[in-house]
Amino acid sequence: MDADKLIEIENELLSSYSKGGGVNHIGGPSLPSRESISEILYTIESLMFPGFQSDENIDQCILKYRTSEKLNQLFRKLYQEIKKATCLKNAPDKRASCQDCSASAKVKTEEFITNLTKVRDKILLDADAALSGDPAASSMEEVILSYPGMKAVTIHRIAHEFYKLKIPLIPRMMSEYAHSATGIDIHPGAEIGDYFFIDHGTGVVIGETTVIGSNVKIYQGVTLGALSVKKEEANVKRHPTIEDNVTIYAGATILGGDTVVGKNSTIGGNVWIVKSVEPNSKIYNKPIDYSIKN
Amino acid sequence: MDADKLIEIENELLSSYSKGGGVNHIGGPSLPSRESISEILYTIESLMFPGFQSDENIDQCILKYRTSEKLNQLFRKLYQEIKKATCLKNAPDKRASCQDCSASAKVKTEEFITNLTKVRDKILLDADAALSGDPAASSMEEVILSYPGMKAVTIHRIAHEFYKLKIPLIPRMMSEYAHSATGIDIHPGAEIGDYFFIDHGTGVVIGETTVIGSNVKIYQGVTLGALSVKKEEANVKRHPTIEDNVTIYAGATILGGDTVVGKNSTIGGNVWIVKSVEPNSKIYNKPIDYSIKN
Amino acid sequence: MDADKLIEIENELLSSYSKGGGVNHIGGPSLPSRESISEILYTIESLMFPGFQSDENIDQCILKYRTSEKLNQLFRKLYQEIKKATCLKNAPDKRASCQDCSASAKVKTEEFITNLTKVRDKILLDADAALSGDPAASSMEEVILSYPGMKAVTIHRIAHEFYKLKIPLIPRMMSEYAHSATGIDIHPGAEIGDYFFIDHGTGVVIGETTVIGSNVKIYQGVTLGALSVKKEEANVKRHPTIEDNVTIYAGATILGGDTVVGKNSTIGGNVWIVKSVEPNSKIYNKPIDYSIKN
Amino acid sequence: MDADKLIEIENELLSSYSKGGGVNHIGGPSLPSRESISEILYTIESLMFPGFQSDENIDQCILKYRTSEKLNQLFRKLYQEIKKATCLKNAPDKRASCQDCSASAKVKTEEFITNLTKVRDKILLDADAALSGDPAASSMEEVILSYPGMKAVTIHRIAHEFYKLKIPLIPRMMSEYAHSATGIDIHPGAEIGDYFFIDHGTGVVIGETTVIGSNVKIYQGVTLGALSVKKEEANVKRHPTIEDNVTIYAGATILGGDTVVGKNSTIGGNVWIVKSVEPNSKIYNKPIDYSIKN
Amino acid sequence: MDADKLIEIENELLSSYSKGGGVNHIGGPSLPSRESISEILYTIESLMFPGFQSDENIDQCILKYRTSEKLNQLFRKLYQEIKKATCLKNAPDKRASCQDCSASAKVKTEEFITNLTKVRDKILLDADAALSGDPAASSMEEVILSYPGMKAVTIHRIAHEFYKLKIPLIPRMMSEYAHSATGIDIHPGAEIGDYFFIDHGTGVVIGETTVIGSNVKIYQGVTLGALSVKKEEANVKRHPTIEDNVTIYAGATILGGDTVVGKNSTIGGNVWIVKSVEPNSKIYNKPIDYSIKN
Amino acid sequence: MDADKLIEIENELLSSYSKGGGVNHIGGPSLPSRESISEILYTIESLMFPGFQSDENIDQCILKYRTSEKLNQLFRKLYQEIKKATCLKNAPDKRASCQDCSASAKVKTEEFITNLTKVRDKILLDADAALSGDPAASSMEEVILSYPGMKAVTIHRIAHEFYKLKIPLIPRMMSEYAHSATGIDIHPGAEIGDYFFIDHGTGVVIGETTVIGSNVKIYQGVTLGALSVKKEEANVKRHPTIEDNVTIYAGATILGGDTVVGKNSTIGGNVWIVKSVEPNSKIYNKPIDYSIKN
Repeated sequence: MDADKLIEIENELLSSYSKGGGVNHIGGPSLPSRESISEILYTIESLMFPGFQSDENIDQCILKYRTSEKLNQLFRKLYQEIKKATCLKNAPDKRASCQDCSASAKVKTEEFITNLTKVRDKILLDADAALSGDPAASSMEEVILSYPGMKAVTIHRIAHEFYKLKIPLIPRMMSEYAHSATGIDIHPGAEIGDYFFIDHGTGVVIGETTVIGSNVKIYQGVTLGALSVKKEEANVKRHPTIEDNVTIYAGATILGGDTVVGKNSTIGGNVWIVKSVEPNSKIYNKPIDYSIKN
Repeated sequence: MDADKLIEIENELLSSYSKGGGVNHIGGPSLPSRESISEILYTIESLMFPGFQSDENIDQCILKYRTSEKLNQLFRKLYQEIKKATCLKNAPDKRASCQDCSASAKVKTEEFITNLTKVRDKILLDADAALSGDPAASSMEEVILSYPGMKAVTIHRIAHEFYKLKIPLIPRMMSEYAHSATGIDIHPGAEIGDYFFIDHGTGVVIGETTVIGSNVKIYQGVTLGALSVKKEEANVKRHPTIEDNVTIYAGATILGGDTVVGKNSTIGGNVWIVKSVEPNSKIYNKPIDYSIKN
Repeated sequence: MDADKLIEIENELLSSYSKGGGVNHIGGPSLPSRESISEILYTIESLMFPGFQSDENIDQCILKYRTSEKLNQLFRKLYQEIKKATCLKNAPDKRASCQDCSASAKVKTEEFITNLTKVRDKILLDADAALSGDPAASSMEEVILSYPGMKAVTIHRIAHEFYKLKIPLIPRMMSEYAHSATGIDIHPGAEIGDYFFIDHGTGVVIGETTVIGSNVKIYQGVTLGALSVKKEEANVKRHPTIEDNVTIYAGATILGGDTVVGKNSTIGGNVWIVKSVEPNSKIYNKPIDYSIKN
Repeated sequence: MDADKLIEIENELLSSYSKGGGVNHIGGPSLPSRESISEILYTIESLMFPGFQSDENIDQCILKYRTSEKLNQLFRKLYQEIKKATCLKNAPDKRASCQDCSASAKVKTEEFITNLTKVRDKILLDADAALSGDPAASSMEEVILSYPGMKAVTIHRIAHEFYKLKIPLIPRMMSEYAHSATGIDIHPGAEIGDYFFIDHGTGVVIGETTVIGSNVKIYQGVTLGALSVKKEEANVKRHPTIEDNVTIYAGATILGGDTVVGKNSTIGGNVWIVKSVEPNSKIYNKPIDYSIKN
Repeated sequence: MDADKLIEIENELLSSYSKGGGVNHIGGPSLPSRESISEILYTIESLMFPGFQSDENIDQCILKYRTSEKLNQLFRKLYQEIKKATCLKNAPDKRASCQDCSASAKVKTEEFITNLTKVRDKILLDADAALSGDPAASSMEEVILSYPGMKAVTIHRIAHEFYKLKIPLIPRMMSEYAHSATGIDIHPGAEIGDYFFIDHGTGVVIGETTVIGSNVKIYQGVTLGALSVKKEEANVKRHPTIEDNVTIYAGATILGGDTVVGKNSTIGGNVWIVKSVEPNSKIYNKPIDYSIKN
Repeated sequence: MDADKLIEIENELLSSYSKGGGVNHIGGPSLPSRESISEILYTIESLMFPGFQSDENIDQCILKYRTSEKLNQLFRKLYQEIKKATCLKNAPDKRASCQDCSASAKVKTEEFITNLTKVRDKILLDADAALSGDPAASSMEEVILSYPGMKAVTIHRIAHEFYKLKIPLIPRMMSEYAHSATGIDIHPGAEIGDYFFIDHGTGVVIGETTVIGSNVKIYQGVTLGALSVKKEEANVKRHPTIEDNVTIYAGATILGGDTVVGKNSTIGGNVWIVKSVEPNSKIYNKPIDYSIKN
């Protein structure tokens, strides 16, 4: 390839960058990066469950300093990413000196950090639910180290805090991180009660306006979704409500913002639900006839 | 374990390496490595969307040099991996000096690089489709940074270029990279039109000879597959054709090389299709009766 | 945030660590770490398929030393993680000096390493099955480098060895590693015969007490699960038996510890099975009527 | 090399490890590592001169958290290395549970950290001395970033604190780190007054019991050493005293514990001094006759 | 250490940062970092001597792209560091938007890059001088890979270019990098002719206004320095001139801006020279009488 | 800088690569790299002193496997670098297939590895010498971790083995590594007896044909060099012989291949010796008169 050709290709690409409103951020402050978001989640998980992620040998004497180090580190990294995410709404040349976004990022970082122990308490309840809900689970350690549902719910509880703080981009980047690692796709907007347990979990989708009660258990491939996906309906409740003590087996689909699954109900595998279900219901598909040829 | 026992185990393993035709490549040139393929995709993504992947602070003055640096780096890495993939067909002792594979790798690398801006243009259309197709999507940045469907389609558009260039191994390694990150499994051979959007996406499977029109939208768990999987049919069209403006909801299965879903059709969730469907159809499963026990 | 507030948050978190039985391991020996388990799997894979993972240029002269290096490294790392996992049952202050766990870890490491070539032989049969079972597969290299089913089965064969050795935590950490990378969730307890092939695989779930014969092929979204999930039934066979030469298509669900799919049977896509199936059966869902509106 | 030969070599080496009292620490707690000491120095330097070592972008809002993070990190790392260094005096099997060494390490870490700002103040005076003492120095930044004397004195001021706390090994590891980076070898025991400046510095040696006043300037190749090096004299003052405002030019050698260079003196290049020198002296070698042959 | 005490220490440190004009750069753009300067030198060396630094396997086909990649990378990194160094003279709040410094950095980066081949040509002459000047040197490869004098002179030739471009900080950071690696301290201002060779080199000091002719050879411990070091004389020639074909043996000291060592002269080991020397002189110390006691 | 100018610069550089015999190795096998040599030395040091370099926690149970792992790793890395160094003498196109160099590299690697314990034994004697020779040394650990002389002599003992095996490049790369880290420059050819101790060491130069007896101690700045440096004398003994039990103080210079310092002698600081010295001599400079001006 001669040099002229390569330069032509390069120029083509460069002019493509500035075409049509563009999608890149050259010259403005960087976007929050996937790497930073993943590091932030790692730090939060390590504050939640010290000693679980790596081999570091923490004795009691050091625990206080290690915790303080991680908290301050978390503050710094969060502040920086939140500031970037918040400031994207401004024109590029206004971002560097934007005092509003700095101030707002500081406040929101503080709010998140203030709630850390509360979030941890909730996550411990989820771990309890997994341990008591899966016959194969033999210890709390096993649940935390190897249950994808546990990982997805942990990250959701964190992402949901940022969602409530109305921080752009970051909650979705977190939920997508969890999705990539576990196959479980929970929109950070979903409101989920205590003792939530997802088993196996691949293919689970839980939409933005879903509301889930306490002590709910769901299996792989369950969708809690919307009936219609019109842009103009972005602000209404589009996803179902699941009340306390409901179990939903693998592959079930529950759709619609007005659909309520009443408390203590059981939804069988592959059941398709678009209307509300009374409390205490047990809903199973009638067996599909299949043909057997020997 | 005494030293003799360990040596015995080692010898067992060593002799196993050379047994039965073997599957390893000792002494010959290396295979393309998963690490290199992942680096190459990272570089291409960063050429597509500068400023999106990491924190690097690129000002306008530097953009040209940064782009040129990445383009040349991409050339080098691609050339090396393509050369390895191409040369595997030769006997190991012929590979080092194989001028044909060098020449061929160079030509194919040039062809890919030449099309880079065209591929980028296509990917931007996909991003538009995602932004307008999902009520929850609030910005182009969010789509690029956190939509698994966007990631899978981006990598598919890249892998498909290598597929068209008939390069062995590399296109499949790329599609498997995307599959691992997103749960979306698109064979690099699939031909996909503009404005393609996959929402959530876990469990989506799109086969090698699938043909997809413009402005198609599909949801998680959709399979576009083959009816039969006989080795001798590897070269015929085994997967369906989806025409323009079709929407396919979650969990639908469409099978067969002669199956055509006509334009403007909607395929409902979990529908199972093995025959062609007229344009403008709306196909939904009749509700399965389920038994309710309160 | 003033310093007092941050200290308050920190103290809250610190006291939360020691509350209610706790879930952390401060002061005791570390847990096996996810990073170590992933490195161990990488080393085993590289012993299984030398030359496949990275670019290292191994000539015949060096192969013996490289293999010996990796074997000894594997011994060291395995021993350390097994010792940690084994010793968790003891009170923290008894762990450091626990000679029993050292001895037991040594014996179990030796047993695993002794079987390495046998495990490799089994994995090569799986690769054969993939190569002959998928019309799109064009070479053994492609299967090993880019088939998620191959990766999941390889890791399962390894994790199952640790399961048989009754080592806590580690087998499940390995299977979850595979799940995260491939979307395929095989409990390390499952007994799987030779020539096993999973195509695409996202969403596959195979339970702990599943028994699978030789030459079985399954597709994405297949569940081999339990009918009931009561903690007190953890020790009975809860998952089905699949006999030799069975093919199970995408999305099928087979449940129950007494359910046997007889040999040479084919289970169609999305079929739901909770009772045993005779040998040589071909089972397909009767087509669901769907409504078409043009 | 056949396997037996390699095992023989290995066994030779293994038995050599345990021979003659040995010099290794297998089975006991690790020694302080060179890597840790270098990281600790990096952290301290970055607390001394924030913004000088790397590219991190610290705004005022974040400075407090960043500083707190580093301080806590420093505490943790220091504590761990000091504990290891302190505990070496015990028999290996007594180390793990040694409460005395933990307590002592904690106290000494606290003492060092408490003095951090005082040490910084002293180092800033040294930087002033360099800036005013070298005509080529054009800014404080240049002095801190590129003056080897500055680096050596900074590390000495730190190492000397650990020396005063009677911590084994660590002070000497720090001074050797400085020696390796700059060619300047200052024993951590040396007592050095304010405004100390070493120019160029390669080959400078300053012994353990040297005492140096304020405002002293020395050049490359200067030795402040001992006259005799008998092991039994390890506890007496063996190295010279240099009083305030003395300048010592390149290559001068000043030896002996009773040798005092009186204040305001200048010692010329290559001068060899083994007896005390009055205050206000200017001492130069009489020119050596050299023969010139044209 | 209780939390209050640590906060007190932290506040002490924080207030120390802002005291007395300070020496840190919080809130302004970062300083050029030592890490970046070392990477830049690595890149330049690898452009000078491709294939010498790492294991990368460059074939002819790739050389062009690799070179272009490195050149563009070099441009980017240089531009960024030069911009930082240039902008330090401005008040912190004026730096971010300083167009002058961007423009100036761009021009100076271009000038350096334009001269790259000329600098390389000069360095090759130095390598020739080393190869022919040292009986122990057996190949050009050995000289480039293992001669400290070669490394120091290479870096000096590079640093001198930046010195001529009047870029602050960076030239001195480069020369200190060389000093740290080799013990050879050459001020970037020194003007040095072709075919320059330093053997062993530890302790060599060459001052800012030194002028050295062609084909000069010097040994370890040689000082080419100033007689007096008054700040007000910073702009006059303070260091000696060494004419063509001069050899200076180990430990010799030559001082003063008016001191000229005439061409073809030889200066013996440890000779001390403060006055000019005629061309063609051979100057050796008369032997010092030493006392021998058997 | 416009694209044409950059291409011009690039072409200039590219054509410079091939000019005048060239000094680069494009297209041929790589040179031994500095990074590899440094890793090899790290591995050897860690085999010599297990537990000294990093934090790895080796218990007795694992020591055997760790040692075997390192030995095999060392074999592999050494073989590869020795093969590269050996094959440089061939024309580039003959290197890849050169069986002679493979065979020779294998034999030489084996020879080095066979002597490992012998070399370790010698190094332990040097450590003893340091411990007993320096009043400031308080433990074997301190000597190994922080004495530059110890590091330089350790690396010399290793490099000398490769020198004796007549391997090109590698011995000198090792000695230069030591020189860079310690300021001590020992040519790998020097023959050095047991119990050798260098204190401080910056500036020490020991030439290729130096012969040193047992129990010799030298200080910083000592040169054991050649009188004349003519290329044609490369093969004769050019450097002095130092017999048993000699001590040489700082800055002394001893030159010439016929110069012998007889056993039990002491050479004072800065003494300049070009003729042989009787055994049992004590040689000190007569004090130089210096002028004192108060």
